[in-house]
Amino acid sequence: MKKENLNVAIVGATGAVGTKILEKLIERNFPVKSIKMLASKRSAGTEIVAGGKSYVVEETVPESFENVDIAFFSAGGAISKMFAHEAVKRGAVVIDNTSAFRMDKDIPLVVPEVNAHVLQEHAGIIANPNCSTIQMVAALQPLKEKFGISRIIVSTYQAVSGAGAEAIEELEKQSGQFNDRANIQAELLPSASAERHYPIAFNAIPQIDLFDESGFTLEELKMMNETKKIFGDDQMSVTATCVRLPVVTGHSESVYVELEEEGITVEELKSAMENAKGVIVQDDPSSQSYPMPLYAEGKDEVFVGRIRKDPQHNKGFHMWIVSDNLLKGAALNSVQIAEQLVQS
Amino acid sequence: MKKENLNVAIVGATGAVGTKILEKLIERNFPVKSIKMLASKRSAGTEIVAGGKSYVVEETVPESFENVDIAFFSAGGAISKMFAHEAVKRGAVVIDNTSAFRMDKDIPLVVPEVNAHVLQEHAGIIANPNCSTIQMVAALQPLKEKFGISRIIVSTYQAVSGAGAEAIEELEKQSGQFNDRANIQAELLPSASAERHYPIAFNAIPQIDLFDESGFTLEELKMMNETKKIFGDDQMSVTATCVRLPVVTGHSESVYVELEEEGITVEELKSAMENAKGVIVQDDPSSQSYPMPLYAEGKDEVFVGRIRKDPQHNKGFHMWIVSDNLLKGAALNSVQIAEQLVQS
Repeated sequence: MKKENLNVAIVGATGAVGTKILEKLIERNFPVKSIKMLASKRSAGTEIVAGGKSYVVEETVPESFENVDIAFFSAGGAISKMFAHEAVKRGAVVIDNTSAFRMDKDIPLVVPEVNAHVLQEHAGIIANPNCSTIQMVAALQPLKEKFGISRIIVSTYQAVSGAGAEAIEELEKQSGQFNDRANIQAELLPSASAERHYPIAFNAIPQIDLFDESGFTLEELKMMNETKKIFGDDQMSVTATCVRLPVVTGHSESVYVELEEEGITVEELKSAMENAKGVIVQDDPSSQSYPMPLYAEGKDEVFVGRIRKDPQHNKGFHMWIVSDNLLKGAALNSVQIAEQLVQS
Repeated sequence: MKKENLNVAIVGATGAVGTKILEKLIERNFPVKSIKMLASKRSAGTEIVAGGKSYVVEETVPESFENVDIAFFSAGGAISKMFAHEAVKRGAVVIDNTSAFRMDKDIPLVVPEVNAHVLQEHAGIIANPNCSTIQMVAALQPLKEKFGISRIIVSTYQAVSGAGAEAIEELEKQSGQFNDRANIQAELLPSASAERHYPIAFNAIPQIDLFDESGFTLEELKMMNETKKIFGDDQMSVTATCVRLPVVTGHSESVYVELEEEGITVEELKSAMENAKGVIVQDDPSSQSYPMPLYAEGKDEVFVGRIRKDPQHNKGFHMWIVSDNLLKGAALNSVQIAEQLVQS
């Protein structure tokens, strides 16, 4: 991979994540020569301004990827399946932020702080994990490394921006109906492709993405399977319950972790996490200090708080993990993967 | 206890729960002769209309309880500590919906479907459990009885009405600030008596009530300790993480349960719960049927859905439990305790 003067393309340029990828490339001085903003035919011609420069969105066609070095995809699984191989064929490395390729055995699924080493072998496509998975594994990586993890049970509190820009608009519109909340009309959530839609304002929807025949949702299965793949540990037990909330941006997670090692203290746990890159331990009950999604919005880090030892299980710990789902959960992690490729 | 013509008093008559107790007494034809609405001096004179009748609120003084048969308390722990014994001294049975007496060894803590039998011995005060505890034990009781429960891990998604009428107003006010959400001013939540206040609109606050030196909040400890007391099982492991959400009414809970019996199927679990009084199993992923707080508001039952067997733990199950925190979580359960006293 070239180390400078890179030609970059962003597919899904007008989406919630696409615009953040552009912002992060500029903010982090990624060594670009050009950035091509790609989207659907409908969005072609749209102007996007970032870092004092204007970018005109073009329609995505196979030829868009001629001379592109790195292509970020964040326009849904169908678009990735349609164009990712076209991009690779033309010599680009694809960093894909959809679920299209994540569980393919031969495609690396990467959170740089956790498993950057798997980037050494790839065949052109690198998968960016699901937002709720990324922040969890980033926070738990130091525990996995130091003490071993045998079990994770996670309940999520996920923001609407994870479902895209239209879901943000839906929450905004519904939020005006406080007193008439029994009559809120829903058009999008829990999933555009679901048959039934439910209000998100003043509600909690225990469905993200569609259901699998197992009774788990695809979002829950993503967390369960991706976590094992990223940690490279098939034996680890991971179970998730994923819930959408009336929060704009910032996913929160109530996480139970069972360590392999016995007798670890809360202080040892905290100190391991405090030393981890990209993780901030924000945990002081006496000053009511703990992470919250409203304050994580716009921040790059993964915040961890409410760390408690289980009173009846010596290897068990409970904690609360919060991060901006559009940044570390998506755009930032994708750009960090690109940085890793360029450095190595 | 008399079986009819009862003189009833409601302390905290103007509060979110007090008014629901009045409504439930009328709706369920509780055999009253009179209902005395009691509150602070400040609220005295307020008129409350319910069931086509008007009730004028009086100031609570020790003499208010002369000739009262049943006194419902729901005006905070300090008021209960001040007046409950005065009421008992004058011959009333107190049904207390605060945390003042719940963990007293000699005071029954009652969810009628679970442990009505403990009502046979009381010394005048009966405690109504915490809202988030009630709905959980009501849903889990059939599992405890049929299969045994060794462990519970619960993460809550709690509504603001659990913090009273002022918290509802705070959410309403803040909900108008969608685009200016970074500048929302908070005055009440997570707890009026806490030093710092955080916005609840478009946020999730992992603190309900104050912190204990253990790092758990009092709300979490209530769920952990009350569950064991109600189930009469000191050995059971219960751990809670309690979170406040921008939901008006309706607490939700993501619950992991470990049974004592091995090899139970999801169908056996569902069938046990379907036969339980006051519990509705609403669980059909194929039609996106699962409980949500917005739809539980105003309903008496406890709703259970998203029931899944843990893929890697044969005795483990995950589920989603929702109920109206002001009804089964407070007012309804209190009135059901009174009904039990009158019937027995």
